[in-house]
Amino acid sequence: MSAADEATQDLIARRNRLLGPAYRLFYEQPVQFVRGEGVWLYDASGHRYLDAYNNVASVGHCHPHVVQAIARQAGVLNTHTRYLHETVLDFAERLLATFPHQIGHVMFTCTGSEANDLALRVARTCTGGTGFIVTANAYHGVTSALTELSPSLGLPLPQGSHARLIPAPGSGENATEIFAGHVSAALEDMKRSGIRPAALLVDTIFSSDGVFADPPGFLRPAVEATRAAGALFIADEVQPGFGRCGEGMWGFARHGLVPDLVTMGKPMGNGHPVAGMAARPELLAEFGRRSRYFNTFGGNPVSASAGIAVLDVIAAEGLVENARDTGAYLIKLIKGLQARHPLIAGVRGSGLFVGVELRSGGPNGTPATAEATRIVNLLRERRVLISSAGPHGNVLKIRPPLVFGTEHADMLIQRLDQALAELEVMSEQ
Amino acid sequence: MSAADEATQDLIARRNRLLGPAYRLFYEQPVQFVRGEGVWLYDASGHRYLDAYNNVASVGHCHPHVVQAIARQAGVLNTHTRYLHETVLDFAERLLATFPHQIGHVMFTCTGSEANDLALRVARTCTGGTGFIVTANAYHGVTSALTELSPSLGLPLPQGSHARLIPAPGSGENATEIFAGHVSAALEDMKRSGIRPAALLVDTIFSSDGVFADPPGFLRPAVEATRAAGALFIADEVQPGFGRCGEGMWGFARHGLVPDLVTMGKPMGNGHPVAGMAARPELLAEFGRRSRYFNTFGGNPVSASAGIAVLDVIAAEGLVENARDTGAYLIKLIKGLQARHPLIAGVRGSGLFVGVELRSGGPNGTPATAEATRIVNLLRERRVLISSAGPHGNVLKIRPPLVFGTEHADMLIQRLDQALAELEVMSEQ
Repeated sequence: MSAADEATQDLIARRNRLLGPAYRLFYEQPVQFVRGEGVWLYDASGHRYLDAYNNVASVGHCHPHVVQAIARQAGVLNTHTRYLHETVLDFAERLLATFPHQIGHVMFTCTGSEANDLALRVARTCTGGTGFIVTANAYHGVTSALTELSPSLGLPLPQGSHARLIPAPGSGENATEIFAGHVSAALEDMKRSGIRPAALLVDTIFSSDGVFADPPGFLRPAVEATRAAGALFIADEVQPGFGRCGEGMWGFARHGLVPDLVTMGKPMGNGHPVAGMAARPELLAEFGRRSRYFNTFGGNPVSASAGIAVLDVIAAEGLVENARDTGAYLIKLIKGLQARHPLIAGVRGSGLFVGVELRSGGPNGTPATAEATRIVNLLRERRVLISSAGPHGNVLKIRPPLVFGTEHADMLIQRLDQALAELEVMSEQ
Repeated sequence: MSAADEATQDLIARRNRLLGPAYRLFYEQPVQFVRGEGVWLYDASGHRYLDAYNNVASVGHCHPHVVQAIARQAGVLNTHTRYLHETVLDFAERLLATFPHQIGHVMFTCTGSEANDLALRVARTCTGGTGFIVTANAYHGVTSALTELSPSLGLPLPQGSHARLIPAPGSGENATEIFAGHVSAALEDMKRSGIRPAALLVDTIFSSDGVFADPPGFLRPAVEATRAAGALFIADEVQPGFGRCGEGMWGFARHGLVPDLVTMGKPMGNGHPVAGMAARPELLAEFGRRSRYFNTFGGNPVSASAGIAVLDVIAAEGLVENARDTGAYLIKLIKGLQARHPLIAGVRGSGLFVGVELRSGGPNGTPATAEATRIVNLLRERRVLISSAGPHGNVLKIRPPLVFGTEHADMLIQRLDQALAELEVMSEQ
């Protein structure tokens, strides 16, 4: 074992001892990073890795404008929202300007889980309902209430659960009608079971289900059915939001929809724990009459400054446009690989959120789960970071910081080409 | 209206428009702070306020050692725990060294709510139970699952709830036996209702119930009864923890107890969103077999650096000892005020967590709710920040940053004396 490998093994042993067994590491050979800059992460030996996976450091690892905003405000004041402070209001105003006019308020939390959990509370309070519809491999968070709505965690549904799971959207013909049909069936099932529906909760790019972006607008009939049954539409923008999809700031925009509640998180502070929920004012009027909400760290001046700085960078560096253009370029290159690598059964996505479905035996073959895991690990050996998603784990999940350029896409494609070739050689042996 | 008052009114209107009606402000005349340093907060006109309330900025507002730690690490790397990083392990090791040896693992979240919600998940998983016992005016957090266990929020208990509320500890004779009796009765009631108990969850200084610290050890028989019924003891240290109680780092230490799970938050990063749960390893072994936990921002290198810096300052500046000594000095001075101000029915607390109960008509008189609110607002006019707690809101809650010295205690007492005198004059008119 090399000295570096020994150091890694020591670190893993120490981690298991201190943090316990509920923590997981990425990769067959876990990697230790010590520094980040733009699209690059550096390991302890100084090797740099192309980050094509991390959506949290969305405007680039350690972006100086965000770092400065955090450092400056942390030295001046960091307190809660029961005193008045302008910065949280400036941030709210900047955020709300990115939404359709029907979305009029924003509330701040620290994590996407807290934002989604708050959305559940608001939906229950405003509809009187308890039923939630989510997709079959969705992930919405780790609170007690959200694990029940996050089947990708693989936990058993509690007895008598009011959650209803529906199949993820397909990518074939009639995807729109089929998805709306599943939502309607779930609503009917609730009716039969005496459960009043509260909301349809979806990640607008269906990240954990395997990335489903097209056709634009396919969510609309499903949302109409939901509203006709008296329930709300909650757009979970924790993964697709903040420009990643390359068409405006929010994933729901591609569907020509205005949600009732919108939740956001991960990239919101470029790593600083900032998250939130935006809402139609009439819903919060009702919620505010019956309840209140206080989050000790939520909306503090440091978090708000980090959030404002992220919005600054997205605008100043044209990152939504870059997500659109580099994303389109990347998808074209991956499609180019399909001719040489039949394992690639399909390429889906929007902007810099791309899913590459691997199947053995053609587009309708069996999900290539083990192969996807191998590719992810082979790319890690080649110092490129991606992951996999979908119920079978056979969809390569490519979701880089938004400062990812065409030169980075070229490098990713070259290494992916090599990894696929190596996999093919291995499977022929 | 003065120009400053007009600016405040504009800010409040803007806040209502942007954040909506679920947010609340402190004080009849809300206050805008723009800067903090040590025990001081400064308003927009440059006036300084003595902070005798905020436990989050526990080592002092904007402590340079913590600010530098955050700024330095934010500029180097901020990523999640699925890659290896030493800082989260260093932080875990430092934290675990503050606990009894039976507590062997720590897991990181961003907020105390997330920590308590995780503790519920672990307790349910490890006991197979669903019943939780909390005190009648407890506060444990804002997630869907925790609002049900936070009666101080005033929300109705859902039908068929498995939560059982027990009276807060008293401060009279036999407090120990009475509290244990309430816990046993709740366990009996669960048994009759076919509910398997999961845990007794208490804030170890009963902050929202009105601050109950004595006699040391009074929790022990209650915890024994809980364990005899197969349930766990969760010590919520979000408010009492990190040295505030002046006797070691944790509130449970005064009770001579080792909890099964310990949750912590607020002061852990001096304002940076850091929180966590420490646990007996055998519980996480079971939880890890059945479940896993990932918190995107939890335990990131910046949060861990902030947490380490807080532990550094607590040790370097002797803040546990200061909490003990200044707290004892403060309680003595408040008791000195009792002779002149019969409204003070009792003084309770430990270290720099002090509750001053106000009653009209002597120690057994009626709770002086309106008077407590007036005192809090009169002190705000005199630029001293405190709040009130308890089911009747008649307990002045004094919980300053731990860098609070005897000179600050003197100032607080002088202003409190004035405010009580002014209240007495008003009530005679």
